[in-house]
Amino acid sequence: MDLTDLLNRVFYPKSIAVIGASAKPDKVGFICLSNLLEFGFRGKIYPVNPDLSEVLGLKAYPSIRAIPDEVDLAMIVIPAQQTITAIEECAASGIKATLIISSGFREMGTTTGQDLQARLRDIADGSGMKVIGPNTLGVFNPGNNLLASFQSSFSLARAGNTAVVSQSGGMCSYIVNALASHNMGVSKAIGLGNRCNLDFDEVITYLAEDDKTKVILLYLEGLEQPQRLMKVAREVVRKKPILVYKGGREELSNEATLSHTGALAGEFRFYEVAFAQSGMISVNSITELIDIAKALSLQPAVSGNRVAVLSVQAGGGIVIADKCRELGLVLAELSSATKARLRKFISPLNQVDNPVDIAWKATDFNACCNIINAVMEDSGVDIAIVATVFWGPTIALMEAVTNLTKDGLKPVTVCLDSPCGAADAHIESIEESGIPTYPLPERAVTGLAGLVEYGGIIRDSGQK
Amino acid sequence: MDLTDLLNRVFYPKSIAVIGASAKPDKVGFICLSNLLEFGFRGKIYPVNPDLSEVLGLKAYPSIRAIPDEVDLAMIVIPAQQTITAIEECAASGIKATLIISSGFREMGTTTGQDLQARLRDIADGSGMKVIGPNTLGVFNPGNNLLASFQSSFSLARAGNTAVVSQSGGMCSYIVNALASHNMGVSKAIGLGNRCNLDFDEVITYLAEDDKTKVILLYLEGLEQPQRLMKVAREVVRKKPILVYKGGREELSNEATLSHTGALAGEFRFYEVAFAQSGMISVNSITELIDIAKALSLQPAVSGNRVAVLSVQAGGGIVIADKCRELGLVLAELSSATKARLRKFISPLNQVDNPVDIAWKATDFNACCNIINAVMEDSGVDIAIVATVFWGPTIALMEAVTNLTKDGLKPVTVCLDSPCGAADAHIESIEESGIPTYPLPERAVTGLAGLVEYGGIIRDSGQK
Repeated sequence: MDLTDLLNRVFYPKSIAVIGASAKPDKVGFICLSNLLEFGFRGKIYPVNPDLSEVLGLKAYPSIRAIPDEVDLAMIVIPAQQTITAIEECAASGIKATLIISSGFREMGTTTGQDLQARLRDIADGSGMKVIGPNTLGVFNPGNNLLASFQSSFSLARAGNTAVVSQSGGMCSYIVNALASHNMGVSKAIGLGNRCNLDFDEVITYLAEDDKTKVILLYLEGLEQPQRLMKVAREVVRKKPILVYKGGREELSNEATLSHTGALAGEFRFYEVAFAQSGMISVNSITELIDIAKALSLQPAVSGNRVAVLSVQAGGGIVIADKCRELGLVLAELSSATKARLRKFISPLNQVDNPVDIAWKATDFNACCNIINAVMEDSGVDIAIVATVFWGPTIALMEAVTNLTKDGLKPVTVCLDSPCGAADAHIESIEESGIPTYPLPERAVTGLAGLVEYGGIIRDSGQK
Repeated sequence: MDLTDLLNRVFYPKSIAVIGASAKPDKVGFICLSNLLEFGFRGKIYPVNPDLSEVLGLKAYPSIRAIPDEVDLAMIVIPAQQTITAIEECAASGIKATLIISSGFREMGTTTGQDLQARLRDIADGSGMKVIGPNTLGVFNPGNNLLASFQSSFSLARAGNTAVVSQSGGMCSYIVNALASHNMGVSKAIGLGNRCNLDFDEVITYLAEDDKTKVILLYLEGLEQPQRLMKVAREVVRKKPILVYKGGREELSNEATLSHTGALAGEFRFYEVAFAQSGMISVNSITELIDIAKALSLQPAVSGNRVAVLSVQAGGGIVIADKCRELGLVLAELSSATKARLRKFISPLNQVDNPVDIAWKATDFNACCNIINAVMEDSGVDIAIVATVFWGPTIALMEAVTNLTKDGLKPVTVCLDSPCGAADAHIESIEESGIPTYPLPERAVTGLAGLVEYGGIIRDSGQK
């Protein structure tokens, strides 16, 4: 069975067994089963627990062998010591995809834990089975109503075009939750945990061909064979951007680990170089990850870095200009023809320059359209940012931005804050028209710079 | 009249005249008047407009002179050319505080604009009057139901202990709106605009004595006499932290200004040194400003930098450890006695170390209390971070943190995300107990590092 078929069983299973399904609401084996049901999984569910005949309205089975039908994905939520038998039974039943939520393996740092994981791997490899985890939070595919995880909060996330592949379940959760909070949708999310015999390079290979995924986000801590990821990434980034956040950058200062600091810090530098060489965009925080992902999920990559800044408030324009400079963007020089056009629409109280000061004209839809058109049609402008503090009447400006996108606007990001959610409905509609929106001026620049960075990556990959 | 009396008239006026009050809803003179009323100003309001006898249910006056009573604050919302006469009339009527919303002065970069502003200043200085602005968004004091501004969104902000003093009205708005969105309250906010004859040093001197203000936030672009601010700040920071965000760091790349780049970049380095020497905390984004302000608004400064990290998810703990290192915090070495105590409460599946892995024990209130107590009572720990992804049952951990604060916890910040607002009510109650809460692990570290940075500033200022 090839990798695509195997991972289709993970992300699009027709049937799932939950080994260790429980009737006790505080047990992970209950929560996982309950999440499958609550999130509306449309396939068959087979709870497996020898002590139960029925759970959450479903018939329970005493063992994997007792399940009468084919099982695409087996979720395993039982103590580590018992997983070996379970995996053997899965293998004997021809199950090719398993998801081991349980911990107690290599992450323990003990010989017992390492041995258990090695045995899992041998059994899985011997039968052509893929094991997700162990020690993982599971798999999430909202477009297919699949929440195979204990992480109930994922039910708040909507389907979209951004995939999350994480070594850590916790970081996977922070990232998926942050996507949800930032009005972004998830195509697939997967926690790889201890990566028994399924690793980043394989999932990325699958996601490269997944037409639901436009942007791939990685959180990773350490890889045994980073060159495998790098090799795959180098090809995938020609089609889709890969953003990577590396955790575990430094071993910290208790005496036991201090002696390793130098070596490990060196290791992070190695990763940074490897990320850059293989065309991945490396980020330094979840915020940066989300901001760049949002831009790339909605807008095309761009090769030019000359930015026009259109701001209602001069202060926001200045901060944006500062951040542009910091991130390697250049303020476009507007042509004299553009300035002459702008002079007709910009208030006589404002100078015509870049940043373009929209000021009180932000309440005038037609003036805003004319201002934006003049700037966008200047051949010296590659990209733009439009920014305003939320103030009811300035929504005219946002309507002008939204209106113009249909005629092939240059790539643009928007800053529109939303105090206490006051502008959330407006933001939703701006983003529905394909324009990424940020609550703060600096973050709108981070997003725009991501489009330019990815443009450079595509250009470089074409030259190799 | 001394500065305190003058600025009390600005922030606690008993009566306000609105010169240029309008009956047309799209006019700034209407919006300013309407905001005063809507936000529940409790003093007298005197609209001034010779063309109106009544506006928004209030009697209108043809001129300042026609107002029968004393006016504490005059808001001026008329074209720039007419402000000279208005200010002369204010001076003749003995008004000591004026707020000029109108633009068209020095910010125009024209001789006319500069001359107008110089005349305003001469008149004001000659009569002992302070002019806020011109070219300002106004003044906001939610604790006194005062919204003397066109910025209606400020009505979403609650009263609290954080003051905002901004050269730019737009940046003042972004910051106040961000405070509101981050569950933080405002003591006073003021846009200084062109700083006709009221500047940062004077407002900070006032805020130093304002018992409603615990933290002072500045946004500034350029000062003619930075040493005046530095001198005042050096004293004020002994009592209250001052955070400063400097905009206009670099002149950007159109040809006309390129030749200045070197000089201006040098200027920012000068400001950075000046901020550091005078004990102000310099930040590089609104997000950083908010994150440090939140910590300082709720928690005390601290001198030690040895941090205990308590995380439900290992990945979050690792990212926090990375960020601690980046910001100069040190992972505390837990004593063997502490480790022995922790061993009793932490899952046998987890090692006992720092970061402390709370994992599934996060759902057990008593275990959480015992874990936190053990760490907090370790004399090698100065400060702590408690972090979890939002997942209903982990609220037990948050209740444990909240519960323990009453017994004099060491300074602590919390990371608890809130996908789509799902945990907002919990965050509200955690913060009511005095614990600053952040949506992402890295940001909780930024806040904690701010407490340590301010601790260092207080220590240094005591040694001078």
